[in-house]
Amino acid sequence: MQRALALARQALWLTSPNPRVGCVITAPDGTVLGEGHTQRAGGAHAEIMALRDAAARGHAVHGATAWVTLEPCAHQGRTGPCCDALAAAGIGRVVVAMSDPNPQVAGQGLARLQAAGAQVQVLPTGDPLAAEARELNIGFFSRMERGLPWVRMKIAASVDGQTALANGQSQWITGPEARADGHAWRARACAILTGIGTVLEDDPQLTVRGLDAPRQPHLVVVDSRLDLPISAKLLDTLGSGDQARQIWVYTATTENAEKRAELTARGVQVIDCAGPGDKVDLAALLRDLARREVNELHVEAGFKLNGSFMREGLVDEWLVYMAPQWLGPGQGMANLPALAQLDDALKLHFHAVDRVGQDVRFLLRH
Amino acid sequence: MQRALALARQALWLTSPNPRVGCVITAPDGTVLGEGHTQRAGGAHAEIMALRDAAARGHAVHGATAWVTLEPCAHQGRTGPCCDALAAAGIGRVVVAMSDPNPQVAGQGLARLQAAGAQVQVLPTGDPLAAEARELNIGFFSRMERGLPWVRMKIAASVDGQTALANGQSQWITGPEARADGHAWRARACAILTGIGTVLEDDPQLTVRGLDAPRQPHLVVVDSRLDLPISAKLLDTLGSGDQARQIWVYTATTENAEKRAELTARGVQVIDCAGPGDKVDLAALLRDLARREVNELHVEAGFKLNGSFMREGLVDEWLVYMAPQWLGPGQGMANLPALAQLDDALKLHFHAVDRVGQDVRFLLRH
Repeated sequence: MQRALALARQALWLTSPNPRVGCVITAPDGTVLGEGHTQRAGGAHAEIMALRDAAARGHAVHGATAWVTLEPCAHQGRTGPCCDALAAAGIGRVVVAMSDPNPQVAGQGLARLQAAGAQVQVLPTGDPLAAEARELNIGFFSRMERGLPWVRMKIAASVDGQTALANGQSQWITGPEARADGHAWRARACAILTGIGTVLEDDPQLTVRGLDAPRQPHLVVVDSRLDLPISAKLLDTLGSGDQARQIWVYTATTENAEKRAELTARGVQVIDCAGPGDKVDLAALLRDLARREVNELHVEAGFKLNGSFMREGLVDEWLVYMAPQWLGPGQGMANLPALAQLDDALKLHFHAVDRVGQDVRFLLRH
Repeated sequence: MQRALALARQALWLTSPNPRVGCVITAPDGTVLGEGHTQRAGGAHAEIMALRDAAARGHAVHGATAWVTLEPCAHQGRTGPCCDALAAAGIGRVVVAMSDPNPQVAGQGLARLQAAGAQVQVLPTGDPLAAEARELNIGFFSRMERGLPWVRMKIAASVDGQTALANGQSQWITGPEARADGHAWRARACAILTGIGTVLEDDPQLTVRGLDAPRQPHLVVVDSRLDLPISAKLLDTLGSGDQARQIWVYTATTENAEKRAELTARGVQVIDCAGPGDKVDLAALLRDLARREVNELHVEAGFKLNGSFMREGLVDEWLVYMAPQWLGPGQGMANLPALAQLDDALKLHFHAVDRVGQDVRFLLRH
């Protein structure tokens, strides 16, 4: 199963919006007969890749064991249900790290395999390998179970919690290794979200750069009044083709029809999502993104929008890069209200603490 | 030598203002004949303890090797020069991790041993064990080499860099493990420094509590106008006796004679140390503390005094505990000026990053 997880990890930047899955087929004596991971969406799933690999190596798989990091699908996709493919190949035993997160189909793949005569087994939920399988697809599980993407907020700051100088300068607080690492986290997201403030201030592209990413995440802009300039660099990153980058601009205004028309003409999708106070309704935005099959949402926004997401309790995880320097008074991480007592603080835990180049990287979770 | 370093580490809270030193005496076949570490100031040094230990075990040490984490002293203390004691015992070889940091006496202990017929050896400066020996006595080296204590500034903050709420609440941001760890760092300091602002706001004792510390560090209060209340709890922590806690109040005022007399009557030492702007001259204060044999100075102050030390470039190390929570707008870590460009930031490096209970501990250095 560890090898299957390693294979799934290889697909981290590839399979969106599908889960990353790995599969290893072994003979009764443990010999690996075939292995594979899920391909780009629309391509083969892990089980099919492993069966093909075994065939290419000239191995028979009748009676063999398939180790899969997620329950084989039971639905008709472009490649046919994987459970049926495994059954048809005569796989004798299927061990999965996690059952399907979709409560409406969970267990169906295993049930069909069992009906076809295969032994099936799911790792106990407390198993570290099961936990790892879940982590690998934390956004897919979030979408299936909650109807929401997994919202990961990325912040780069100094030790004293400043993300920019008072004059706006922020390039660069963290070092090259942390910035490269940030691109790897972008790459695994289905979509990157930013706010109009960041667009107007930094004119970013918010693409994955500097690594061999097979796809560019979609782009979400929170833009209550449709202030997005037609000259914004991020508009040049719009892709064409089936799985290319889409740009979704969420707005709260029904005015500004000209801008809306211009953006639409460029291929941008303008989405009405008004909430109280003529602001975009962020909770509704997240539900809409889940409907658009966004598993992991990577938020790279500024002080104000970060604060809005946090005040509404919409952030699942913070990815914080902290540089070993003092900046003094500048721009803080998030616009939060002053508290009356410490008990009211947003209390999290350090899920992970790692050094990345000269900087430190935190993952904080509830 | 590793064992000698471990012994020296056992003396971390004990020997102030003397260095923490460990000594192991081994036979030619490597058998340990005796070992020891420096005792409380005025007590035996490590070499004497190791010789006594060997004698108590009934081992002859003639021709043996002594491993010492610091060059044996050559001066007349209460126990006599250690180099002479080793020579008199017939030690055949002395290996030291570091030579004496005092440039005026460095090498004299080894020279006397050599003159007495012993082989001597100093670990090369690049040796990790030499570096560890230096770390153990970083304050002693600082005082000997620079005439300044090693200034370690302790800060406990939230991830967003707040040390207290706007209303002053700060107890507690970090967890019990981090607070206990903070006491261990206090215990190794020769003195703890705070500012009058912290005294007036929190009325702290600034003692070592919750661990079996053999001594209480001295206490330094920066109090430009002699505002220290006679009722301040920290005044109750004044010790009596040879090595008991002393309290040194540095002031910039020559007025307030009554307060001065009251404090003096309590046993507090009021020290005039005026700098520009009727403030205490912090650089002069540090030089004075070095003269008072302060090796490691543990600074636990507030926003303003932290900022003053940092703006004057007087901090050698930051001990930062970071709690996994967001506090929003409150009191920052240090009163620093706003910068015009990122290049002007105080750039440090993470000397160490560790998890302590639920929190993270940074050691930052230049």
